[in-house]
Amino acid sequence: MGHAETFHGYAPEQGYDFLRNIIAKEDFQEKGCDISADEIFISDGAKCDCGNIQELFSLDSVIAVCDPVYPVYVDSNVMAGRSGLYNGETGRFDKIVYMPCTADNGFLPEFPKEHVDLIYLCFPNNPTGEAIKKADLQAWVDFANKNGAVIIYDAAYEAYITEAGIPHSIYECEGAKTCAIELRSFSKKAGFTGMRLGFAVIPKDLKSGDVSLNAMWMRRQGSKYNGTPYIIQRAGEAVYSPEGKAQVAEQIARYMKNAKTIYTGLKDAGFTVYGGVNSPYIWLKTPNDMKSWDFFDFLLNNAGIVGTPGAGFGPSGEGYFRITAFGTYENSLKALDRIKNL
Amino acid sequence: MGHAETFHGYAPEQGYDFLRNIIAKEDFQEKGCDISADEIFISDGAKCDCGNIQELFSLDSVIAVCDPVYPVYVDSNVMAGRSGLYNGETGRFDKIVYMPCTADNGFLPEFPKEHVDLIYLCFPNNPTGEAIKKADLQAWVDFANKNGAVIIYDAAYEAYITEAGIPHSIYECEGAKTCAIELRSFSKKAGFTGMRLGFAVIPKDLKSGDVSLNAMWMRRQGSKYNGTPYIIQRAGEAVYSPEGKAQVAEQIARYMKNAKTIYTGLKDAGFTVYGGVNSPYIWLKTPNDMKSWDFFDFLLNNAGIVGTPGAGFGPSGEGYFRITAFGTYENSLKALDRIKNL
Repeated sequence: MGHAETFHGYAPEQGYDFLRNIIAKEDFQEKGCDISADEIFISDGAKCDCGNIQELFSLDSVIAVCDPVYPVYVDSNVMAGRSGLYNGETGRFDKIVYMPCTADNGFLPEFPKEHVDLIYLCFPNNPTGEAIKKADLQAWVDFANKNGAVIIYDAAYEAYITEAGIPHSIYECEGAKTCAIELRSFSKKAGFTGMRLGFAVIPKDLKSGDVSLNAMWMRRQGSKYNGTPYIIQRAGEAVYSPEGKAQVAEQIARYMKNAKTIYTGLKDAGFTVYGGVNSPYIWLKTPNDMKSWDFFDFLLNNAGIVGTPGAGFGPSGEGYFRITAFGTYENSLKALDRIKNL
Repeated sequence: MGHAETFHGYAPEQGYDFLRNIIAKEDFQEKGCDISADEIFISDGAKCDCGNIQELFSLDSVIAVCDPVYPVYVDSNVMAGRSGLYNGETGRFDKIVYMPCTADNGFLPEFPKEHVDLIYLCFPNNPTGEAIKKADLQAWVDFANKNGAVIIYDAAYEAYITEAGIPHSIYECEGAKTCAIELRSFSKKAGFTGMRLGFAVIPKDLKSGDVSLNAMWMRRQGSKYNGTPYIIQRAGEAVYSPEGKAQVAEQIARYMKNAKTIYTGLKDAGFTVYGGVNSPYIWLKTPNDMKSWDFFDFLLNNAGIVGTPGAGFGPSGEGYFRITAFGTYENSLKALDRIKNL
């Protein structure tokens, strides 16, 4: 940065070609998804994209979210004025359509009965840790195309998929380019939490009426964003190098070893657990119908372990508890031992 | 980043203490402005802050902007739905209050006659390059406090102020903490265009009705932003080191030498010029009432020089032309020679 020869000023708002090209090629084209570099918008992380993407839509758009849900989808729509009022009794906002995901439906949302304009889906899911099969995702794509809805597909955890038959991208489904935006994160995949890098995929075929959402997002980013730092984008490019890939694979394998250990250990200890196979999160049903926050207190006070109460993700998360595999193997084992000895 | 000992994950959304503390101390407290670290929000640049800050205000807020103006203030409000329709004849949006800044009023906006809720001021100004005197800024602070308006004060170019009596911060004015948000940039000051770093100052005394805008911005950033990269914030901290200060001073002196050379040269050649004394921009009145874009074509075709047509900044920029000092001294001289020989 201190030398004219290597100095880089304002970056292209949609990201440098070197990064967009390799993403288009390796994350999509080589996996059978027909996505080109000019459909990819580099950002400073999936959280910003999750929060900002709703700006593309009118204030009277009806949004649908899974319940439990990553709070940013809801909060950003509340701030925009799209949610209606909060109902303390139901724990829900009046104008938001909630799609419960519980053990009863295998943590798979059911199609809304009312008309919705915008559907937030996150798979592998945060917080439940459950993935979606390709046929089920295809049904959502068909539903969206049929009903003129747009899917915001948050694939932040795709790198943790271990099973076959689980889509890494929504664009593996036929017709997704006319109904879906996909969001990706380098934080979960490559430890970029403190670096800030992600991207949105907005296909050129995706329209709202006559309007290209790709062109609208380009304009939005051009007016309200000034590009992701050059050095961070170069770091992102390194993730695709042979060395980067090896390191990412090793790191994910380590976390997934934790996930398997925690999942299996808890199951063997008699707990009911979900997730953890295609995701770094284990979703635990609290014993004896204990409330999420009561279980939080119980675990903290009796085992010195902290997790995330499911109720914090929405009313249908009540009675569940999220345990993360983003730790060391030693600490995962230690925590497991303590839980077993409760 | 590759080592556990030095790895930094999610940063505090409002920025690391090490950077907020030194900003509060050196940019404000040591200059007599009573601003504390918890009133400073680190961001990935002033452009994002300029674009996002309007989210704090309701959609029926009336905004006032200078004309000519940095386009982001207007565009972000257009996108939010606050502007009304565009009037092709006037080149203005129906619901936005424009405050013309021309040679006639010394490029100083006059108080709006109608009620306004939000006033965007940028000094030293982009594009006119003109600064505001402390007494004049104090009058704006008094106006805002009296009328319950909030000033968004864009001080991106404060490092280029060379004259005494020109405020570097709006908080040099009495009462500014109850009516003003200030935005700062590391891009202009320290060449961070490709690094992305800036900050917003939102005093705790600043309220809209009963609501603290500081608390609201904290919530907004916490929900829709995930912090500025750690390494960029460390680079920002280095700007305040003795070495960083020396480099910044040297760089600004170099640009201001360009500004002086261009300003004086154009003046000597018979052009009417403004700015350039407390700003890296020279604002040129086109000769013979030539339209901005005609002058652009003329200069490009006859001298191979590119500048920015004033009309691009708003209707009152028509007949003006912005010339930048952000170049090398050699190129500045070369351009000047070509203009003189037209």
